[in-house]
Amino acid sequence: MSLNTFGHLFRVTTWGESHGPALGATIDGCPPGVPIKAEALQVWLDKRKPGQNRFTTQRREPDQVEILSGVFEGKSTGTPIQLMIRNTDQRSKDYGEIVEKFRPGHADITYWQKYGIRDYRGGGRSSARETAARVAAGGVARAALKALAPDLKITGYMVQMGTQMIDRARFDLAEIENNPFWIPDAAAVDDWSAYLDGLRKAGSSVGGMVELCASGVPAGLGAPIYGKLDTDLAAAMMSINAVKGVEIGEGMNAAMLTGEANADEISMGNDGPRYSSNHSGGILGGISTGQDVIVRFAVKPTSSILTPRKTITKSGENTEIVTKGRHDPCVGIRAVPVGEAMMACVLLDHLLLNRGQIGEELPGRIG
Amino acid sequence: MSLNTFGHLFRVTTWGESHGPALGATIDGCPPGVPIKAEALQVWLDKRKPGQNRFTTQRREPDQVEILSGVFEGKSTGTPIQLMIRNTDQRSKDYGEIVEKFRPGHADITYWQKYGIRDYRGGGRSSARETAARVAAGGVARAALKALAPDLKITGYMVQMGTQMIDRARFDLAEIENNPFWIPDAAAVDDWSAYLDGLRKAGSSVGGMVELCASGVPAGLGAPIYGKLDTDLAAAMMSINAVKGVEIGEGMNAAMLTGEANADEISMGNDGPRYSSNHSGGILGGISTGQDVIVRFAVKPTSSILTPRKTITKSGENTEIVTKGRHDPCVGIRAVPVGEAMMACVLLDHLLLNRGQIGEELPGRIG
Amino acid sequence: MSLNTFGHLFRVTTWGESHGPALGATIDGCPPGVPIKAEALQVWLDKRKPGQNRFTTQRREPDQVEILSGVFEGKSTGTPIQLMIRNTDQRSKDYGEIVEKFRPGHADITYWQKYGIRDYRGGGRSSARETAARVAAGGVARAALKALAPDLKITGYMVQMGTQMIDRARFDLAEIENNPFWIPDAAAVDDWSAYLDGLRKAGSSVGGMVELCASGVPAGLGAPIYGKLDTDLAAAMMSINAVKGVEIGEGMNAAMLTGEANADEISMGNDGPRYSSNHSGGILGGISTGQDVIVRFAVKPTSSILTPRKTITKSGENTEIVTKGRHDPCVGIRAVPVGEAMMACVLLDHLLLNRGQIGEELPGRIG
Amino acid sequence: MSLNTFGHLFRVTTWGESHGPALGATIDGCPPGVPIKAEALQVWLDKRKPGQNRFTTQRREPDQVEILSGVFEGKSTGTPIQLMIRNTDQRSKDYGEIVEKFRPGHADITYWQKYGIRDYRGGGRSSARETAARVAAGGVARAALKALAPDLKITGYMVQMGTQMIDRARFDLAEIENNPFWIPDAAAVDDWSAYLDGLRKAGSSVGGMVELCASGVPAGLGAPIYGKLDTDLAAAMMSINAVKGVEIGEGMNAAMLTGEANADEISMGNDGPRYSSNHSGGILGGISTGQDVIVRFAVKPTSSILTPRKTITKSGENTEIVTKGRHDPCVGIRAVPVGEAMMACVLLDHLLLNRGQIGEELPGRIG
Repeated sequence: MSLNTFGHLFRVTTWGESHGPALGATIDGCPPGVPIKAEALQVWLDKRKPGQNRFTTQRREPDQVEILSGVFEGKSTGTPIQLMIRNTDQRSKDYGEIVEKFRPGHADITYWQKYGIRDYRGGGRSSARETAARVAAGGVARAALKALAPDLKITGYMVQMGTQMIDRARFDLAEIENNPFWIPDAAAVDDWSAYLDGLRKAGSSVGGMVELCASGVPAGLGAPIYGKLDTDLAAAMMSINAVKGVEIGEGMNAAMLTGEANADEISMGNDGPRYSSNHSGGILGGISTGQDVIVRFAVKPTSSILTPRKTITKSGENTEIVTKGRHDPCVGIRAVPVGEAMMACVLLDHLLLNRGQIGEELPGRIG
Repeated sequence: MSLNTFGHLFRVTTWGESHGPALGATIDGCPPGVPIKAEALQVWLDKRKPGQNRFTTQRREPDQVEILSGVFEGKSTGTPIQLMIRNTDQRSKDYGEIVEKFRPGHADITYWQKYGIRDYRGGGRSSARETAARVAAGGVARAALKALAPDLKITGYMVQMGTQMIDRARFDLAEIENNPFWIPDAAAVDDWSAYLDGLRKAGSSVGGMVELCASGVPAGLGAPIYGKLDTDLAAAMMSINAVKGVEIGEGMNAAMLTGEANADEISMGNDGPRYSSNHSGGILGGISTGQDVIVRFAVKPTSSILTPRKTITKSGENTEIVTKGRHDPCVGIRAVPVGEAMMACVLLDHLLLNRGQIGEELPGRIG
Repeated sequence: MSLNTFGHLFRVTTWGESHGPALGATIDGCPPGVPIKAEALQVWLDKRKPGQNRFTTQRREPDQVEILSGVFEGKSTGTPIQLMIRNTDQRSKDYGEIVEKFRPGHADITYWQKYGIRDYRGGGRSSARETAARVAAGGVARAALKALAPDLKITGYMVQMGTQMIDRARFDLAEIENNPFWIPDAAAVDDWSAYLDGLRKAGSSVGGMVELCASGVPAGLGAPIYGKLDTDLAAAMMSINAVKGVEIGEGMNAAMLTGEANADEISMGNDGPRYSSNHSGGILGGISTGQDVIVRFAVKPTSSILTPRKTITKSGENTEIVTKGRHDPCVGIRAVPVGEAMMACVLLDHLLLNRGQIGEELPGRIG
Repeated sequence: MSLNTFGHLFRVTTWGESHGPALGATIDGCPPGVPIKAEALQVWLDKRKPGQNRFTTQRREPDQVEILSGVFEGKSTGTPIQLMIRNTDQRSKDYGEIVEKFRPGHADITYWQKYGIRDYRGGGRSSARETAARVAAGGVARAALKALAPDLKITGYMVQMGTQMIDRARFDLAEIENNPFWIPDAAAVDDWSAYLDGLRKAGSSVGGMVELCASGVPAGLGAPIYGKLDTDLAAAMMSINAVKGVEIGEGMNAAMLTGEANADEISMGNDGPRYSSNHSGGILGGISTGQDVIVRFAVKPTSSILTPRKTITKSGENTEIVTKGRHDPCVGIRAVPVGEAMMACVLLDHLLLNRGQIGEELPGRIG
């Protein structure tokens, strides 16, 4: 059984395989009247698009998004929005060997065991190409957020890549757009570049860690107990290919702290409560506090490396495999816009869930 | 808006506040014919029950579970199972001060902001007492797992508490039941005890990290893309009170590794694929591999400490608060059975989701 | 597999068997701040309660509802509301014969075939006692509707019982409370009474038809395409025990009409659109028009009659059965408050779904 | 808020407007290994396709379905199946007048009131063109049913059109394919033709009633209480455009019957229980009995007629409208394949839900 939908009221179903005719996202629950244009969605897809520099895969995927429904005269109508991206650069011959062999660290073997059939071309449904559909859907979510919560801003960036870490003392969000790693630390770019060049030339790969910060999130988002804001963010991030861990605020480090060290004290500001610190990552009891919402997630190194690895065939014979093809040395880089997109979807979803307590008029007036 | 249900086919809705008449779990989707007895559920509740040693809260909560529906002559009937736990030890006077003041680090302030009304007694719905209902539901899940997958075994244990860590070289699951911390490291118990005694006497608290291991999990569990096994486990753990981070297999550490270091090579064993290591935590592409499924989660220190903290009142005045009452110095300890219960629910849910590909007869035969 | 929950945002899960310790409803998604008292819910339960006159079963079911959670100081908190009704009058001996034999027209045989186990006492989960939980939940829905849409009014009444029909020329809603059939036709009461007395004394039973009218329903309710208001009303009514048909407005009769005869022309009134007639039953394209919403449903005669009927045993032997016990000669009568309750739940659910297009402040203010 | 998905495990989301670039269905939850070809789906779409005779709209809609995902080498893979139908014959000029005026009996006014924006071209999302997507999805459901329950057969046919009824004494399913009304009564065809010709030439329209019969349905389908088989069938049919009533077995007529007249007695046959009659329509307590499942639904006359009708404009002015364009004089005819498709989806969904009680191996074997 498969479950390809996420969201409670803003529901996104992604579909498509890496080497089928197309992939996309079916979005149900977008509020009506939101300005949506293909060109605006394309901006986010281009951010994720591979082949933009030497640190991402050299596959050419133009990833042109088409809007097939749900938008009329430039605005959402409240009906399902269908976003389609045609697959174009499908060099299927690159993947010939994997028809019979399972690539270690990939989902080849588990899809086979679960379904008894798999589209082996490029990972099929388990390919990271699926994240293009997420980014397109995230573009719609951002457009709706812009209308509903204009002060809300989502920013993603890397904070670690293998042994390379950013220096928080030099943290500057303005630097993110100026380097290929989306890191907020200009002085680290050269080291990161040299490090990844080394791995790339060796045919190796490396993991990474992405941090997401949402500012301007209104207090009150989160549907306790099982749709807590942190719960839904954790699920959203963990559903991204290759993600192995998710944390909010202090995260795993909270295991280390005492109650005194972890407390965010409260005082009254001009426009509401203020907090002395943000160990909580902007979420208490699963509900947003109004502070920045901080999420981090770890992406494992891609398993596609040039070193031969032991594996088996469908018929159960021991063998070896080298994953050829054109791969990202650090998939964590391209995970940045994907994480941002997922966060946009989750925040919009909870913004919509949070309505409904008091009366309001319907939008369509007559007379 | 609230969302108090989790699960796809095995759906658990928890209800109840810490100081209301009762709390419990409404379970829909338990397969019929599963042997279920209140006494068997009680075993798990007793494991979570406070007041068993000096390291957990001295509140007395007998946590007697009653089965109100869905079980007939000792077996589940396929209809909803209602589990109720009466609240008995409700010393409401302990909580008098928090009627007007928000406890920092607690959900008092966000529930108030979200709902405009809150049951302030003992945290109300945001109290960790809600986890008693999870443990009861987990008992039902374990009973169903026992019938459907007899080899599946779920074990939880602490691996860190503040500065104290277990030594993996001494790892011995047989030791878990022999110490108050559920740690698989007998030689560490004295140090952990002394450390927590110090914190307890100082009126402080500390975080912790819990690891869960499920062995005997069949390959093929997990509903890609948005109900991946790791996604659902992450959501389940993050929904537990005070949890700030979740990781699978290598987890956050995956950001550090190269592709070579992270690869789990495959070979053919007598009864199916074997893996040279388990960096993946038993999950590839969101689907179980048949290896041990490994999850870790971090629990923050409880915010209820004897040091006065700055806070505000409902009317927006700055003030201070000391959280009196009887609290756990490390809530991570009692999070062990809660994590186990959540894992049982998730694994059963995916076991049920994974059926349906081939024909089978109905259970009720006539003639 | 069972599915015991209905509703999208206002979600009601009913639980319990006719002869278990208790039954009830777990309600998730009730808005916060709604005044809710057990006494107010009891009014609706008493309306459904059997034994009030000679035309309903003589079983005594006090049906006292207890609120176990989700209500604090008389108001909903936004957390799950647990409503419990203890079963008291369980004369299990009345049902001895049905342990082995399946009652024709009852769900005994299908529950057995589906689950391989059944609580045979009084129908178990398939008993109409389950509708007590619906009525209790409907009371909560009515309380929330009163707060959110004060002009909305739901009225149910019978329009047919076997060969007896009401005369629409004498239609007077004020008469409903004055007769045991809830019919809006005072002049018909004597005939209906004589007719049902005859059937009752003969140990027979008869079907009935219930009409529901909701006035004051705001325009715009209904979530096309698969959560249309009429779709959800049809599902809600068809889920009631013994219901075999549901219709909206002209209903089945629409098959007979021409486009000219069926048209509801529109003109502009002082406060919005007006319609020349209401063939549509207040719903166009699945969305409410602002007119009265009109639903009818047919209830089959109970299969519990004194005439012996052919049936089989669990072991497949042919036999006969006479259903003893204390039964309603026309279950359609007590279906009236049940239909009202379901309509209240559906309308509230869609009222909540219909929010979320424009901004609003959170209810909990600070300072 | 919109809800464009139906189904529990076999989930279909339809998308698209009548005059947008395309429409289609996103199917999640189709079991893997089902043989699926576009040509086979096309057969069902052609059955629904307009313009095949003088009794259906003369619009030309080739309705060519494309499979964009989820099928690999002719078989479903268990991943989402995207079905797309390009819109081609979009004579938008036909609909010019309805930009400002609301067509009585159509959803124009309610969509406007609900959303404040609508795609006025041809009804937009509320157009019956949406049912093409249902028929395509139904084709996938039929393919899966063929694999899982080869004896299951679904047949739809008209039983009434305005004043014309079939004669049950002449009932012959073999005749359905031989006439433009899909009626199982050869002798009635001429009368029906003359009747509808008269209405068509007068620019009028008429309602109709469709009956669906599913034979070979295994006992045990239906998920009580709120996903009963009859509940889900009622919802599925009521969600079809213009449907105003749904009934199972005796349906609305059950209100008329006594318990003696309505009873289906049970005896033991060679291969299981047999019933003396089928008043229940093959469903008891929401669960299939193994008898034929019988559903009927009424379709209202299309509101697009040549007689001018009173209406209002968006700005609230009174006016008149004549709905030009090419319309079906009886939309009930083309509702036959749509009803069949919905029934196929519901039965497959419940077949999938009904699994999961006993163990089974995964389909993907290794070695």
